[in-house]
This record gives sequence, structure tokens and C-alpha cells, in this order.
Amino acid sequence: MNLKCLTIAVAMACTCTLGEAQTAPAPIKDDFQPSSLNQPGQEYPQVNSQGYARFRIKAPKADSIKVSLGLGGRGGTRLTKDADGYFTGTTEGPMDEGFHYYHLNVDGGTFNDPGTLNYYGSTRWESGIEIPAHDQDFYALKDVAHGNVQQILFPSKSTNTSRRAFVYTPPGYGKNKSEKYPVLYLQHGWGEDETAWSNQGHANLIIDNLIAEGKIKPFIIVMTYGMTNDTKMGPAGLRNFKVDAFQTVLTEELIPYVDANFRTIADRAHRAMAGLSMGGMETHAITLAKPDEFAYYALLSGGTYSPAELKDKPKPKLVFMSCGSKERPDGVNNAAAELKKDGYNAVSYVSQNTAHEFLTWRRSLSELAPLLFKD
Amino acid sequence: MNLKCLTIAVAMACTCTLGEAQTAPAPIKDDFQPSSLNQPGQEYPQVNSQGYARFRIKAPKADSIKVSLGLGGRGGTRLTKDADGYFTGTTEGPMDEGFHYYHLNVDGGTFNDPGTLNYYGSTRWESGIEIPAHDQDFYALKDVAHGNVQQILFPSKSTNTSRRAFVYTPPGYGKNKSEKYPVLYLQHGWGEDETAWSNQGHANLIIDNLIAEGKIKPFIIVMTYGMTNDTKMGPAGLRNFKVDAFQTVLTEELIPYVDANFRTIADRAHRAMAGLSMGGMETHAITLAKPDEFAYYALLSGGTYSPAELKDKPKPKLVFMSCGSKERPDGVNNAAAELKKDGYNAVSYVSQNTAHEFLTWRRSLSELAPLLFKD
Repeated sequence: MNLKCLTIAVAMACTCTLGEAQTAPAPIKDDFQPSSLNQPGQEYPQVNSQGYARFRIKAPKADSIKVSLGLGGRGGTRLTKDADGYFTGTTEGPMDEGFHYYHLNVDGGTFNDPGTLNYYGSTRWESGIEIPAHDQDFYALKDVAHGNVQQILFPSKSTNTSRRAFVYTPPGYGKNKSEKYPVLYLQHGWGEDETAWSNQGHANLIIDNLIAEGKIKPFIIVMTYGMTNDTKMGPAGLRNFKVDAFQTVLTEELIPYVDANFRTIADRAHRAMAGLSMGGMETHAITLAKPDEFAYYALLSGGTYSPAELKDKPKPKLVFMSCGSKERPDGVNNAAAELKKDGYNAVSYVSQNTAHEFLTWRRSLSELAPLLFKD
Repeated sequence: MNLKCLTIAVAMACTCTLGEAQTAPAPIKDDFQPSSLNQPGQEYPQVNSQGYARFRIKAPKADSIKVSLGLGGRGGTRLTKDADGYFTGTTEGPMDEGFHYYHLNVDGGTFNDPGTLNYYGSTRWESGIEIPAHDQDFYALKDVAHGNVQQILFPSKSTNTSRRAFVYTPPGYGKNKSEKYPVLYLQHGWGEDETAWSNQGHANLIIDNLIAEGKIKPFIIVMTYGMTNDTKMGPAGLRNFKVDAFQTVLTEELIPYVDANFRTIADRAHRAMAGLSMGGMETHAITLAKPDEFAYYALLSGGTYSPAELKDKPKPKLVFMSCGSKERPDGVNNAAAELKKDGYNAVSYVSQNTAHEFLTWRRSLSELAPLLFKD
């Protein structure tokens, strides 16, 4: 992946997070329910069965409130004030299924919707809303055995601090005291951090459900901060992004710590790396620079590999490349075809009717997991 | 603890969370620094060496912004708008050391300060600010071995769902694969949830540091939601609060799950229960109702035990009662004296110059920990 691809991936991250809406011929159904991501007891925002989102904010003396969520590129949803001092409004059309970041503009200032939980994206804790997806069952909290997600603080000499990571251990990890597990290192995108994959990605629930259905063997997931926000925002800063500092933290500090403190199978054949968007760019760079560390590579809306990049290196057991159908599906499909021609185990996946957002990546993880650690 | 004590504890929780300020004879020093709880890259809010807090919020078209933090009972801090569209202001006096919840009133609406991280309190995710305490070293992130904090989802038949808890496992838990540990069940207060003790309480860092200094032997901490916010707010709802549902979840579901999935010493002598404010009320009720479950009891700003309540039951190995000096220290001191007279191992602790806030409880945990699991 070259610099141009990176710039495209980041540009997509910046422009598409508001969600794309489709044209809406049908009238708006009056079956709005509170979003599943609301704070306890909060009635708004709400979502209806068609995917419209409705907002309601109390601010009796404010002049204007606009929601950043709405039709892509058209500036979001402007709310209207009623006599009781509440601002209300509904998106112009249905939103894409899945998770969306957003915030409010209240009289010119940026604030979160007090009704929702907060999620780290765009280098700030944003409001979050969930448009129920028709296939949401695969990431639902069900009555199955659950793995745990734990915060670890690992020593990092290269950055002179204790750094945070989250580690998913699968169901049974605490009981099967002699079993060892493969490990997936899973990276967030630009503007996000190490909380993204478990908070908005539901990575733990996706894996819990796949294990419960017998579709995969249990593995560990490690998620840490990819240092992608440490440069100044904007193309200039991103163009200067160097993966070296993160590569050192990951391969020389985090992996040895995880292997020392968790029951891992500590070899290349049982270690995978995947990332979304800029996390895909990092995955691409680090797997090529350290081909003895990982045997499985996955880029989720994060670019592609070419046969030329992979030749003369230890052969990956899997190259997985995915994106949403509203991104550039030809890119991942063509790249997989090229790799297959040269004998690589390459798989592309396109998430239908989604863009550069988390439903694409939840689905990608669910498609990727059964392909990992096959032998 | 009777109903009157509960009402007092809850009233304290409601009125004191804004923090009490002292009179300020000295001029305000111009050494303001960003609060340690700010979101990445955010310059405001700031705190100076005297404990003043300064706020700066952009909202060019807003008419008024008020911060809920300031001098207790005097309605917080009103900000002033400048020509650039920023509202700024400084608390009228220095704040108490430690952590404070707050929020903004923007033109009559309740919003969080976009500069800070969010913390669950008062049944909402609030803004948080930290006034550096002179003794902050004991809860600082240091270059020592760190334990992990993990989210578990445990099955709960009585509430027909998977419930969340956080489990702190001490440094070495992952390596010393045969060692078993005692367990402290640690409860949050009214309006808070199971995130409080690790997010705003730094329970993990407090225990990491005590272990590193050789002051305590490692133990596990389990923190779950005490269901204290499920009744309607206000005295009527709280008066009707019944501990039974939570007692069932804790003693019949969570404790067996933890004992089955973590390397615990699963007996009364190695199990403690502690809670702050309403979590203390729950600790009081559950330890008395289930005296065979716990051997160590601790109420942090959460009432007292009397000898009459404890007699004819298995004797606790420790009764610990604490509060801030700005609460009612006589209450815990007198109760401990009464218990000692009757031969109980009772300890009271008073946190100097703090009120019904988290610095009181961080310090209380640090004082409590060395007294736990002594044999």
C-alpha cells in the first residue's frame, strides 16, 4: 500500500463517518425506540424500523442545535425548538445500519448528546448511535459462555511509560488452566484508540458467539493504541506518519509481555495481525517488515497487498482484505484475485450496504475469525 | 445502619459532590495546567497549584454557560464570553483535592465539558476534573508491576441476563499459575456503576503500588453494579430500596462464578466486602444477612455497625469504617470505639480535608487494604 492509498483510506475515514443515507420513498414510520447505546434511562436519541434517527435535546435558551449525523455531505440534521425548550429533529433519510459517531453543534460549540454513551473516534469522545442491523444477531449479547476483556498496563521502554492494551480471553480461559491459545493483534483506525474494538466493535461478543456456535476454536485478541493520532491532524501530519515507533512497541514490548503473561502459543503460526483503516495501513507495514512474527494478515477497509510485496518473504497462511460495498470493493476483490493467481491463500470480503464504518468491520471480523489458525 | 443513616448518606452524596471550597486569602497564582483527566490534546479545563479550576468552552452564539463546580451551595461557576466566542471562568475559591464530577449548563441545557473524559456518577456520564492531591503518589501510575482489570459477563438467572463486573487480578496472576488469592467485593455509590472504582477510584493502581511497596499481599477485587439506581431518584425511591435482588446476584451468582473462573481461596476467611456510600449500605445489609460469606467488612462513607447488630453471628475478622473529615468523623470514630469495647477488631479512618468524594474513598481503600486477609 502506498501513500496514496493511505491518504484515500484516511479521507474515507473523515468523510464517511457520518453515514450515508439512501433515498426514502416511504413515509416515516412512527415506531421510534430509544437507541441501544443510550445512557441508562434516556429516551433520546431514538431510531425507527426504517433506520431514521430522531433527536431531542433540552436547551431552552439556545438559538440553534445541529446534529452532525444525517445525509452525507449535506451538513447533518438541524433541530427545531418547541415551546417547552426542547430541540427535536429527524434525519432526512434512513441511516446505514450499524454504529455511527456524531456530536452536536449548540450555538456554535461542539458538545455531545447528553442522551448517549460516548465512544472514542475522530480524536474525541463522540456520541454514538446504533441503527439496528438486520444481521445484528452475530454481535448480540446472548446467553452463551462469555470471554473476558481485560485492561493490561505493559511496560514500554521505548516510550518510557506503562502503556494500555485490552486483552480478550475466550470462555474457559480461566478454567482450562493448561490450554494455550493463538493470538490476534487487532488495531483500531485513525482518530480511535484501544477501546474501539470492544466498545463499538463488540469484538468480544462476536468471538463469544462464533465459539458458542462451534464455528471457530477459541483464541486471544490483543488491542492496543496504534499511536495513529500522535501526529497533527490533516494530510500533512498523516503523510509524515511513521509506523516505526508503534512497530517497536508492538513487536518488541507488547508481544513479549503478552506471551509471558498469558497462555499463548508463542510462534508465528499462531499469531495474526489485523487492523481497520489506518490500523490496516499499520498491519500492512508491520507484517511486511516483520514477516517472522505473524502468519495471518488482515486489512479491513485498510488497503491491499500485492504479490510483489509478499515475494521472497515467509509465506503468510492467509491474506484477508475487506471493505464496505460503499467503499471500493473492486480494490479488495482484484487484489485477492491477483494474490490467488500467485498461489497465495487470499480472501476478499465485501460488507453489503455499508461504508467506512463499524458495521463493515464487525462483519469483517466475523468473516475473518473462522479463517484464522486453521492448523 | 437504620433508614435515617441511609437517608443522611444519600443526602451527602447528593449535596457534596460539587466539592467544598475554602476561603482564599491569597491571590490566584498563574500556574494553571491542563487537568490530568482531559481528553487527548485538550488544554481546558485547567487547575492551578492552589486548587482553583479554570474552564474555557467555545460556543460563539450561546448566551450563558455555567459550570456545576464551584463553591458548595452557591450555584457553581458562571463563565464569561469573550470576543472570540469562548466562555471562560475560574472557581471562586480553591477546590478540595481529588476528583470531582461536574457538568455544564449551556443556555438551559445540561451538557458535558468537551474537554474532559467522562465518568459515571449522578446516574449520568459526567465530566471529571482532578485537583492534584498532596498525597497523589499512592494512586499514581508508576513503573511497577501492574495487575489487570478485566470485564466479565456472568450469567444471572435471577435477573435473566448476562451481568457485567470488573475483576482486578494482581501482578503475577497470569504467571503464578498455581497460586490462589483472597477476594474483596468492592461496591460503588448511588448514581455510579461498576466502572467507578477503577475509573475514578484508581483501585487497581492503589493496590499495584501497595504490593510493589511490600505493604500488602496480592488479592483479587471484584466490582459489579449494585443496582442502586434502579429505583426512581429522590428520597421516596431510596426509602423503598431493597437490597434483596442485589444480594441474590452477588452471593448466589457472582461469587460462585468468580470462584469457578478465577483462582480464589473460596472461603469466608478469604472474602471481604466493602462499599462507598450506598455501597456501604449494601455491604452493611449483606454482611449481616450472610455472615457466613464474608469475614472482613468495610463501610466507606457508608454508615456504621453496632455491637448489637453483630452479636450472635460469626465474628468478623475486621470492621473498617471511614469517611472524610468534612462528613461526620465522630460517627465512625465512636462506632469503632463501641465495637472495640465489645472485643471486635474495629478500625476507623478519617480522610483529612475531604468530603463525600472519591479522594476520601481512594485513601480509605489504601488504609483498608493492609488490614485485609491477615491470616
